[in-house]
This record gives sequence, structure tokens and C-alpha cells, in this order.
Amino acid sequence: MNITPGPLLGKIETPADLRNLSKEQLHEVSEELRQFIIDVVSVHGGHFAASLGVVELTVALHYVFNTPYDQLVWDVGHQAYGHKILTGRRSVFHTNRKYHGISGFPKREESEYDTFGVGHSSTSISAALGMAIASKYKGETDRQHIAVIGDGAMTAGMAFEALNHAGVANANVLVILNDNCMSIDPNVGALKEYLTDITTSPTYNKLRDDVWNLLGKLPVGKRFTRDMASKLEAGLKGVVSSSSNLFESLKMRYFGPIDGHNIVKLVDTLQDLKDIPGPKLLHIVTTKGKGYALAEKDQTTWHAPGLFDKITGEIFKKLPDKPQPPKYQDVFGHTIIELAEMNKNIMGITPAMPSGSSLKFMMEKMPDRAFDVGICEQHAVTLSAGLATQGMRVFCNIYSSFFQRAYDQALHDVAIQKLPVTFCLDRAGLVGEDGPTHHGAYDIAYMRCVPNVIISSPMNEEELRNLMYTSQLPTQEYPFVIRYPRGQGVMPDWKQPFKEIEVGTGRKLRSGKDVAILSLGPVGNFVSEACKELLTDDLQPAHYDMRFVKPLDEALLHEIFSQFDKIVTVEDAAITGGFGSAVLEFMAAHGYKAEVRILGIPDRIVEHGKPEELHRECGYDAAGIAAAARAMLREKITVTA
Amino acid sequence: MNITPGPLLGKIETPADLRNLSKEQLHEVSEELRQFIIDVVSVHGGHFAASLGVVELTVALHYVFNTPYDQLVWDVGHQAYGHKILTGRRSVFHTNRKYHGISGFPKREESEYDTFGVGHSSTSISAALGMAIASKYKGETDRQHIAVIGDGAMTAGMAFEALNHAGVANANVLVILNDNCMSIDPNVGALKEYLTDITTSPTYNKLRDDVWNLLGKLPVGKRFTRDMASKLEAGLKGVVSSSSNLFESLKMRYFGPIDGHNIVKLVDTLQDLKDIPGPKLLHIVTTKGKGYALAEKDQTTWHAPGLFDKITGEIFKKLPDKPQPPKYQDVFGHTIIELAEMNKNIMGITPAMPSGSSLKFMMEKMPDRAFDVGICEQHAVTLSAGLATQGMRVFCNIYSSFFQRAYDQALHDVAIQKLPVTFCLDRAGLVGEDGPTHHGAYDIAYMRCVPNVIISSPMNEEELRNLMYTSQLPTQEYPFVIRYPRGQGVMPDWKQPFKEIEVGTGRKLRSGKDVAILSLGPVGNFVSEACKELLTDDLQPAHYDMRFVKPLDEALLHEIFSQFDKIVTVEDAAITGGFGSAVLEFMAAHGYKAEVRILGIPDRIVEHGKPEELHRECGYDAAGIAAAARAMLREKITVTA
Repeated sequence: MNITPGPLLGKIETPADLRNLSKEQLHEVSEELRQFIIDVVSVHGGHFAASLGVVELTVALHYVFNTPYDQLVWDVGHQAYGHKILTGRRSVFHTNRKYHGISGFPKREESEYDTFGVGHSSTSISAALGMAIASKYKGETDRQHIAVIGDGAMTAGMAFEALNHAGVANANVLVILNDNCMSIDPNVGALKEYLTDITTSPTYNKLRDDVWNLLGKLPVGKRFTRDMASKLEAGLKGVVSSSSNLFESLKMRYFGPIDGHNIVKLVDTLQDLKDIPGPKLLHIVTTKGKGYALAEKDQTTWHAPGLFDKITGEIFKKLPDKPQPPKYQDVFGHTIIELAEMNKNIMGITPAMPSGSSLKFMMEKMPDRAFDVGICEQHAVTLSAGLATQGMRVFCNIYSSFFQRAYDQALHDVAIQKLPVTFCLDRAGLVGEDGPTHHGAYDIAYMRCVPNVIISSPMNEEELRNLMYTSQLPTQEYPFVIRYPRGQGVMPDWKQPFKEIEVGTGRKLRSGKDVAILSLGPVGNFVSEACKELLTDDLQPAHYDMRFVKPLDEALLHEIFSQFDKIVTVEDAAITGGFGSAVLEFMAAHGYKAEVRILGIPDRIVEHGKPEELHRECGYDAAGIAAAARAMLREKITVTA
Repeated sequence: MNITPGPLLGKIETPADLRNLSKEQLHEVSEELRQFIIDVVSVHGGHFAASLGVVELTVALHYVFNTPYDQLVWDVGHQAYGHKILTGRRSVFHTNRKYHGISGFPKREESEYDTFGVGHSSTSISAALGMAIASKYKGETDRQHIAVIGDGAMTAGMAFEALNHAGVANANVLVILNDNCMSIDPNVGALKEYLTDITTSPTYNKLRDDVWNLLGKLPVGKRFTRDMASKLEAGLKGVVSSSSNLFESLKMRYFGPIDGHNIVKLVDTLQDLKDIPGPKLLHIVTTKGKGYALAEKDQTTWHAPGLFDKITGEIFKKLPDKPQPPKYQDVFGHTIIELAEMNKNIMGITPAMPSGSSLKFMMEKMPDRAFDVGICEQHAVTLSAGLATQGMRVFCNIYSSFFQRAYDQALHDVAIQKLPVTFCLDRAGLVGEDGPTHHGAYDIAYMRCVPNVIISSPMNEEELRNLMYTSQLPTQEYPFVIRYPRGQGVMPDWKQPFKEIEVGTGRKLRSGKDVAILSLGPVGNFVSEACKELLTDDLQPAHYDMRFVKPLDEALLHEIFSQFDKIVTVEDAAITGGFGSAVLEFMAAHGYKAEVRILGIPDRIVEHGKPEELHRECGYDAAGIAAAARAMLREKITVTA
């Protein structure tokens, strides 16, 4: 669908075009940009509310700063749609998040305006500070480095680490704190309450006025001299340090809070700040979803709503003609409640993904037993470890790619101490449209090397339930990883009674004689299809759903290696060091000598696209699996033919 | 050597004995405890200055709180010697850090007083909060949970994440900020400056006096009623919140700063705080090395000085009778300067280990190009990525086990973006006395699955230099891992001219015909010895120093697999998913069918001890390697015999 931009936006190919407009025209540009985002996202999908919330900021930043020479880092990046549209990608914006289209996140190889690839939260200050320190070293004193970070992202530890360094690094960094009280779900924690205090307290509002009056006395648009800057700084010190603001404590000069939707105020403020050297923070207050009433009202739903009718606000959902299987997320969300009703020691932890993980159901029903701790994967895991020392059985639910950020905690605080925490790694495998930063590709490899850990993956909803059930039994004393993908399962009739699954046991799904196909997790369903294909070729594949990659089902493997000399392994994970490698290690340890073909995510960055497109590209959809088996059996096929 | 405790200390087997003493006796106990630590550490070794600094705090905590019911978490834990001595381990304290002796860190399986295993920094608040939330859920309203954390550890992001949660969790947590201005090296960053401001500012000192006057009005020793506590809280609010202290901003009630060496004041203060419910922070000021003059003066050297004469303060060093090889650390530290003198784009980053890594030499010589960023591995890596986007060639030096904390950043910010950062992973392999939390066991497995990354390990000092040289060449465009162990190398004459090592190439060190031994890194020197042993058995081993685990030298491997059907791989790293697995993956991909034996760190927690003891235990010292090769060649030996 061809979407026409408004008349001003239609003439902007790069920020230089934007800078030719008058300040008075910026409001109009902002409205056109907002409308364009609504038009495109409603028919092509993508993240929505975050970009609407920073329309004015985006316009103001590119208007005031000399991008791309001045360097702009968007934290997380799903709010950067306006940035992409203003920086040469308006005409390809409808390919956003599509296979071979542009990325839904800033990406260095896509544009010189994308100074730093993002996706995971809270990296922007570190990255911008690195750039600023390099500039300082090179003597580029006129160059600006700006990190735009939300109040949610500010709760992650690495943002604090970066502030702690920025405050003393004496480099040109401007941090813009985009305070909208939201992560994907509402933001939580002490910092959020503090920011609310600031924006509502009379003291702070007085302070704010003092600062801006001071700034107001300076001639607008005129560049500061060093001398003027230091006078201003001295003036500010008097006003600011008496209040000992949190950011001031960390030696960041603090400005704000100001209204992030007032484009003229934003432009004036940024213009002034540009000339103040050193580390500084501007606190702006915005509304996520701004300008689209429904999104303002239900910001979590409209974070990434899918396709919708922009006039009526109806979000399109496929109407099933028969009962549909549930999402794995909902199986988790409902099952943990069932288990918690039976076992009073169960607790649930999510770092800022109550909706995405479906832990929200338990948080609503059992608020003293299920917690959102904010974008704090590290803390989430060590908190779980602390709870586990007291006999609690914690289900710590983290997206696989975000779990990377808690790797040390999982290893050091949980595994070494052999604490029975259950890690539900959601979004495991290729996640689709979010692309390389979000693919849950590495969890098997990086957890498999860790002693004491059980690693499992269910082939369907029933196995997910039973693995969850098994992990919380009193007899179960080890850290227990359960990885499962985003999205729909395969069993409409999923709510079966719980059954323990003996740890380290797989199951044979089909007997055969030509080749054994060993799968881990939901890709087992691709294997089932592939087997049907192979049967039509008169080949006899056996299929094993291994369920556990650690410990491996050694009895079953002995059986398999005794019977087969051709083996295919399939996993929705990086093949380097993964499930297939575990099978090779078993083979080497026991002196078997079979031909083994490992299918999974190859050792390169896999870009974004629909999961099925990516599975095909990586060669482990049903057709790919069948082809791999056929290739191994070529000889037999030739003979038979 | 039998070390006699002082008369009071000699009667303390558990904290209950301590609690039988009068408050007036605590000074004497503290002095005896300090002396005992000096006596033992001087002849048995270990961490030193940190434990001396918290002698009074340790005594006060066990005196006031009802440990182990009240739960004490020591951050990092190398300051917990006094704690160990007071909690049943005085008589075995001379086995500290020795093979099969007690651990140098708190460890759950060692004592019920060790509530949480530590080693890496900044986990204590999360852990204590988890315990506190469990207690709250169970209705244990009288139970206290205390985290003792240094100002250095407080700079790591996860401490901030935990504070952000603690401030709103309404659980009984007391954080004791042990402010001694030190990590192992002097602490750095904005927070450190802020804490210095607090402890020296007249405003804060007035505040402190107000708070303590207020507390002083309450009857000593009497337990607060709820009503009294809330009156106190209201009183404090007036004093404290006007100052908007950083910790108050995060909704932690802040108390202090107070002198952490005044035992009576500490006891009184803790007594009062015990009865104030909810999250609170006590800021105490201590001197690292307190009571041992030399340690107070040079805190970095005396962090863990090795054996010394407690009277003269002479630190014993082996007197070499011939020129000794340097430490790998010093090879790094001097080589980076040589390289930086040739290449103006080189920068060096360390997260709080300038001395340990020897980056301090460059920091002294080129202060605008080498930085200590504090205990902030996450920030260190993403900062390096930001620098790399500007053409800087960053050597980011992190201990292997601490690099686990920057895993997501290495993957997400460096590898996905294919930025040419050099990661020098120090302390790779089994580190020895620091034990399980510090073994650099997993880096190969967790980095090998990451696309775009080069992973190497030098067999000696010359290879380390040449790998560093290679990694910074303009033709080198990938993230480049160089892992090397703690301690001395093998080449007294190490400073050879630089030579590029072609990426992904190994070298043949010895031709043979019975078995090929493939090694990665310094364990190659064990293999050389093993080969000599095997020769005396009339066996002909070949030896290859592979140098790179990623990319593998495929040409060399084809040569090896064509010639040998018995192969041994050796690595100082976890065998699950490691270098040996990479060789198996190669073998499977190319259809070779050799017998492969993988030597390295087994899939279990390896405890502490001297590196040579642990190498022997794990079976990859020279004797173990020779034995493994012999076992594979048993048939041949039998025939020959």
C-alpha cells in the first residue's frame, strides 16, 4: 500500500531538509510525522506507541543538532521510527521488520545516522560516552553525543554504570531521559517513584523555573563562549546543587523536567544545552502513544499492536474457524498459577515483561508471590537465588536473549550454589521480526557448559506444563532451564493433568531404520512433518524427541547409536556448541562412529523476517530437514531408484 | 604452624559465645580478631586488607544480630575472614584457600552462617532482598537481612538494580555501605566522589548529628514499639528528605556516615536500626587494612600480599637463581604500551583491575588513552564498542570469569555489530586458590557460539604479544578474544619483535605417528612435557598448538585427521562445548571418524587449590595427558610389549 506523507514531510529526505524549515513549521512537521507512522504501522505492523511519544523530540533533535556528525544513540530503539523516516528511509519504511526489509531498530549498516545498533535496553549512555571520549581524544570539541533513554531503561544497572563514569569523564554527553512512566508494561521501582516526585513536586518546579529563567536571560540562538558557559554553570550550581538531585549526585548536570511534546520549548532548550560542555541530563516528560487516543489510554496493548484499523482502532486478529492452540506464553501464565495453588513455595519473577511473559495473570491473582522487578535481569536472577535459599521455588521468566544479561548471575549465584531455580526462557530460538538482537539463539550453548544445570525444551504445550511441574517437585534439586519459543503451540486441547517427566529422558516418536532424527523442542513438529515427506520417498526415518539437552538421555542415545549410523539433530538454536554438539560429545565419549548432520541456526548473524522465512533460510523447516536426511541417504535412494 | 588466638577470641566458637560478652569487651575481641587474621594470613596467605577493615563491623554484626537466624550476606566476600573465624571456623582457618581446605569466600555448604556464596561483586543486596521477601511472605517479621557492600561494589549496576527494587519492596533489608574508597585499586567514578562529598561536607555532618541526636533521645537497648519507630521515621524524614540524599532518592532510609572502627558506636547504631522496619542503608567509613600500618598505607599491595613477615612487613618473594619468565599480566601491560606508541588509535579499558591486569602502566603513561571504569564490566564493554565505532582500537581487559557479566554486551553491542574490539580475557582457566567463582572455565564455550568472533589463546608470552599485535592491525575487522591465564609464563626472553599471526592458523610443534595431541593455550607446555614422557614409552605423539579455537585451522585439521585416527585435545577450559567440541564439530562436518579424547575442565564444580593441584585433579597436567594418550594406545603398547 502506497502511503503519502504530508506536504512538509514529503520534502524531507535528510535532516538537512528539516533544518531549512522555520521553527514555526516544526509543529506541522511533527503532526505529519506522527500521521505517517500511524498510517504505515496500522497496515504494516511494528512497534507503535513508543515512536509516537517521541515525535517532537525526534524532530527537535535533528533540527538542532548537526546529525550525523553529531551522534544520536536511541536506547532500545523501538522508538526510532520517526528517526528512520527523517533520515532517508521514508520511502522504504513500509518494509520495516519484513524479510529483507529495513530493521525495526537502528542499525549501523543501514544508515550513517544510526550510530549504534540497539535492541536490548540501557546501552545508549555507555555507547554515547564511548563516542564522546573518542571525540575528546581527537580534539573534536564541537561534536555532540546524545543518548535518548527511557525511564524504564534507566532502571537497568548498566545505565547507572555509565552515569557513574560519565559524571567524571568530562566528555560531551547529553543524556535525554524520556520519562513516560512506561517500559512495555508500566515502569516499576524506586527510581520511577523518584521521577514522579520530581515532576509533581513544587520544589522541583520552582527549581525548573529558576533554571529556565536563567537560561532565558541569555540571547537565544547565540553560541556560548567558554566564559558564558562557565558563568551559566556557576549560576546553575547555586540553584541546582542545593537540591542534591539524584543525577546531580552522580555529577551529571540536571535540567528539567520539561514537556516533551512542546516542540518549541524542546528546540530552545536543546539549543541552549548544546553549548554547555560536559555531561548533562535533560529530563523530558512525554506520553507514550501521544496523539493516538487509544494508544495513550492502553499503552501496553499499543506497544506493538499488530495491524489495526487506524480510524476505528480495531486491532485485527485472525478469526479462527476451529479451536486454536494457545500461545506458549499463556500456557506458562496459567500453569504457574495452577502449580502455585498446589505448592505454596512457588513464586514468579519477571524483569519488566509481565504482559509479554503472561506472568501478569499470577501478579494479579497472587500479588505477594509474583513480581515485576523492572528491566533488571541481573537482579531478577540473584533475587531468585536469594529466595531459593529460603526454600522458595522460583519461576524466573526471562526472554532467552535478555537472559544473556544475567549470565553471570545464573552461573555464579544459582548454578555454583546448586539452587533449584526454574528459568523459563521465553522467546527461545529465532524470534522473527525483532531480528538479530532478539533471537534466542545462544542459550543452549552458553548454559550447557555450566555445571549442575538441567536444560530442557518442550515439543508442545503439554510437555511445557509437565516440565514446569517436574521442575518444582521437592525431589528436584537443580537449576532447571525450560526454553520455549514465542507464539502459538500445537495443542488446542492443552490443559492435561500434570505428569512428572523423568529428568534426562527423551521419547521415541517414530521407529525407523534408515536415519534417526533427534530433535529438541518445538522443532520436533517440523521433524514429524519431514518424516511424512520422507515416507513418501520410501525412506524409514526414526524420530526422537529428546526433551533434555542436559542431562542427555544416555540410555536412549546408546539405543540410537547402536541401531543407526546416520543421524540428524535438529534444534532452534545456534549449532555451535549446542544440542548437536552435545550428541557429538556423547558419541566421542562412547566411541560410536556415526555420520551426524547438525541442523539449527548457523554461525552467522541471521537477520529479521517471519519465523517461517528464517527457519527455511536456515534449513530446518520441515523441507530442510527432509532434504538433509535425503542427502545423507542419497546412496540408498540411488540404489532404490 | 599452630596459631594461638587471644584469650577472649579463644573462647568464641560461635556468635552465641560472643553475645555473652559485655559491650566493653568488644574492643578487646576486635583487637584479638585482627591479630589472629594477621598471624594466620602472614604465614598461610590470602586476602588481607579487606578483612582488617571490617573487624569492628564483623564483631558488631554478630553481637547485635541473631545470626544465623538473622541473615548476613557479605558482598564479594574476601572481607569475611573475621566472620569465618567467629562462626565456628577458627580452628580450620589455617586451611583457608588450600586444597581441600575452607574456601576464601563465604560458601553455603561450609556453614549455616554463610547464607549466600559470593566471589563476584555486587550480588549481596539482591540476595538479601530475596531472603527478606521470602521472610515477609512467611510472616517472619522479626527476621533481619543484612547486606554488607563496599563502595567499590556499589558502582556495579546490579547493586543499583537491587536498590531500585528494595526501595519499593517494603521488606526488612539493611544495607551496610562499607565506604573505604577502595576496590582492589582505588575506587573511581561519580558515586565515589559523591560519597566523599557526604563524608566531608558540613551539611552532611550536621545532618548526621541531627539524626544521631534524635536516636540518642531514645532509651538505649529498649526495643522500639511500632509507634516509636514511626515517630522516629517522621522525625528523620524532616531531617533527611530536605537533603535529597542519593539513597533517599531511591527510597532507602539513609543513616550515617559513621566511623566503622568505633565498635561501641557501631553496636549502638545497629541496635537502633534493628527495630526500624523496611529498607534502610547505613553508611560507615572504614580504612582498608586498618590496624596494620603498611596495609593502611599501600592498600592495593596489601589486598592479597602473599606470605609476609608480620613484624617487618617484608613480603616474601621467591628469589630466582636465574632470569624468570614474566607474568602474562605484565606482558600484556608492557606490550599494550609498545603497540599504543605505534598506533595512535589504541586505547585500554579495565573494569577496576588496573593492578591485576597491569593496565596501570599504560594508565600512568597515557592517561588519556587508558581508563579504569570501576566494577562495571557491562559498561566497560559497551563503552569499548562506542569507542570502536569511532575507529579506536580498544583492548578491553577483563578477567575471564568477570567477563560473564558482560556477556550480553559482548554479544549484542560488539559481535552483532562486528566491531573490532580486542578482549584480553585474563585469569582464563583454573585460577587456583580463588576457586569456583573465579575459575575462567566457560569463556570458550560461551563465546564460541557467538558469530563474528575470533577466539585465540597463546601458548607463551611471545604468542600473546603477537596475538595482541595481530588484533590491532587495520586489516583485522572482527572482535578478537585473547585468553590467557594468571601468573608466570615460560619465556624469560619474551620481548621479541612483533610478528603477525595469520588468524585461524595453528602450528605443528612435533611430528609423530601414533596419536595427535592438539592443544589450545599455555596447556601446550604440559603437552610438550607429556610428549617427552610418551617418547620414553616408545610412542610417537604429534603435537599441534592450535592457537585459535575460532576460526579453527581447517587446513591443519584436514592434515591431522587424514593422518591420525587417535586424537587428544587439551584445553584449560570447560570441555562441554569448548575447544574439543569444536574439533568434534569439524570432524562431523567433514565425515572423519577418528577416536577423540577431550581433556579439560570436567562438567562439575572444581573447588579451590593450587593450579597444579587442580590440573592434576582434572587430568590435564603433563602426567594426565600422557596417561590419556597411553590409554588410547593401550593396544599398541600391549603389542609392543
